[in-house]
Amino acid sequence: MTNPVLVEVTRGGMVESFHRGAFALVDGEGGFVASAGDVGRPVFPRSAIKVFQAIPLIETGAAAAFGLTAAELALACASHSGEDGHVRQVGAMLAKAGLDAPALECGCHWPFDPPVARELARRGERPTPLHNNCSGKHAGFLCTAVHLGEELRGYVERDHPVQLRAKSAIEDLVGEELTSDACGIDGCSIPTFAAPLRGFAHGFAKLVSGRGVPPERASAGRSLIEACMTHPWEMSGTERFCEALMAAAPGRVFAKTGAEGVFCGALPELGFGFALKIDDGATRASEALAAAVVAKALRHEDASLAARFDDLATRTLRNWEKREVGEIRVTELR
Amino acid sequence: MTNPVLVEVTRGGMVESFHRGAFALVDGEGGFVASAGDVGRPVFPRSAIKVFQAIPLIETGAAAAFGLTAAELALACASHSGEDGHVRQVGAMLAKAGLDAPALECGCHWPFDPPVARELARRGERPTPLHNNCSGKHAGFLCTAVHLGEELRGYVERDHPVQLRAKSAIEDLVGEELTSDACGIDGCSIPTFAAPLRGFAHGFAKLVSGRGVPPERASAGRSLIEACMTHPWEMSGTERFCEALMAAAPGRVFAKTGAEGVFCGALPELGFGFALKIDDGATRASEALAAAVVAKALRHEDASLAARFDDLATRTLRNWEKREVGEIRVTELR
Repeated sequence: MTNPVLVEVTRGGMVESFHRGAFALVDGEGGFVASAGDVGRPVFPRSAIKVFQAIPLIETGAAAAFGLTAAELALACASHSGEDGHVRQVGAMLAKAGLDAPALECGCHWPFDPPVARELARRGERPTPLHNNCSGKHAGFLCTAVHLGEELRGYVERDHPVQLRAKSAIEDLVGEELTSDACGIDGCSIPTFAAPLRGFAHGFAKLVSGRGVPPERASAGRSLIEACMTHPWEMSGTERFCEALMAAAPGRVFAKTGAEGVFCGALPELGFGFALKIDDGATRASEALAAAVVAKALRHEDASLAARFDDLATRTLRNWEKREVGEIRVTELR
Repeated sequence: MTNPVLVEVTRGGMVESFHRGAFALVDGEGGFVASAGDVGRPVFPRSAIKVFQAIPLIETGAAAAFGLTAAELALACASHSGEDGHVRQVGAMLAKAGLDAPALECGCHWPFDPPVARELARRGERPTPLHNNCSGKHAGFLCTAVHLGEELRGYVERDHPVQLRAKSAIEDLVGEELTSDACGIDGCSIPTFAAPLRGFAHGFAKLVSGRGVPPERASAGRSLIEACMTHPWEMSGTERFCEALMAAAPGRVFAKTGAEGVFCGALPELGFGFALKIDDGATRASEALAAAVVAKALRHEDASLAARFDDLATRTLRNWEKREVGEIRVTELR
């Protein structure tokens, strides 16, 4: 099955490039509210399901034992921009568990956001593991392992209890067994398991609707989602699209990007979850489509709020002299 | 027509993302040596045809009048990285025509290559129009306008003689009339006209084979292509893919990237030209495909050289801890 063209990039009135993909918007029973493309093909969810991976941080009692704040829970679900505030708060999280940066096994990278990276360079600094966009998730993993008295070294490996707990939570939410033949290594060295988009969408719908999961698991998921919606900057960063989506409807929309064109999210009031993947992995397209899927979910509930997300789904493109040269827009989703 | 999948990105043994596209590899008569996908659909060539746009710089006598060096001709065809050497040489080119940076109408941007941008930031500097990847092309436009005594202001506009001359050279090479309904504004504010890939490929083949164009035009094109092959760093930059392609077969392969997944090139010995476009605009895919197209062109001529380009067509992907996580590879082109 060839996925449909869902996002177009225009120049001078012509379509210059286009992106194919698939999305699933589902309710608590897993029924489709809307969908397009092949939502049964296994895809790697990458960072878009950090909420699922952080569930054991709550369920084991580690978050409560170390007195993690809502902002710190948001960081545990974050792909943050490595800004000063992110780095400082992840350091504080690790300190609550008696650890510091060298315990992290996520690796180092310059912040993805060019202005943040240039500011670091301007100060003559270099990135540390705390700057890694996944450092908050890793701090959460480490807090859990410390709380349970587990060996810390190798906490990123597939057979470490930290990763086995995350896998078990994901399997429960997605409703699929995650097997080694569908396993890859993520950018930050932890395993990532491929599963169908409809499963990831259903997992988010289960958490916000409370259907099909034990109440404790739904409660853990909801506190993480709530923390992200309250602290969107902590889970993303300045001028990031996840922040823009959540700031457009405070407390009503959760949205999380993942590498290679993945986006997941939830609409707690409606009990809906969604998941999408752009075939070619382009973030510009996954962002536009995420906004359009939220708009579609809200269309009959709140037309004016839906219109705000329609606006976010279209982006005017300007060149270096700020001249308008085209736009990024979503097709066929109204 | 849906273009075929030409490039795959894998993770853990599965295909995570994939790129569709089209390419044309043609001889001096415009006959197909190889092709895939829809090569008749108009696409914006963007920076991949800077050689065509620089032809008037030679044909008007401006390059000779100002004594432009081969390195400066390569800069006139460049999408350079904005490194110190590029900035200095473009400044020198402008000075030969009695101009400096404020004459440029290309706009400013931070160098695309993150290490180059960070080094600039580290020194507390900011980009000037000389850092714009197109500044060499614009310096070439200005040299021509000065040489012919034309008004300089507005040299980027579609109806300025500078752009009309470039358009006329492109129409001759591509064999199509370029109309205003197929015109967009490029990143550096000059017009870019959409035309079929087979036309761009044929244009490069005409220049290197000398067929189907007046000898003076072929000669102008060949001196530019020769200059780029002799000075690949000037027309791209440190660790750039254009440089890698040309360094792999000095004097035997010309290759030039363009925005939104376009790549053009030529094999002078064989008299072939090629042009390709990735539907979704991804550079990682256009680079891999360009190497594979060159490999295909060389397969029967020089198998060991072809193997070098096959190697360039595949890239191992490593994560932040340098662990191998997957690869980018070209499908179906052997």
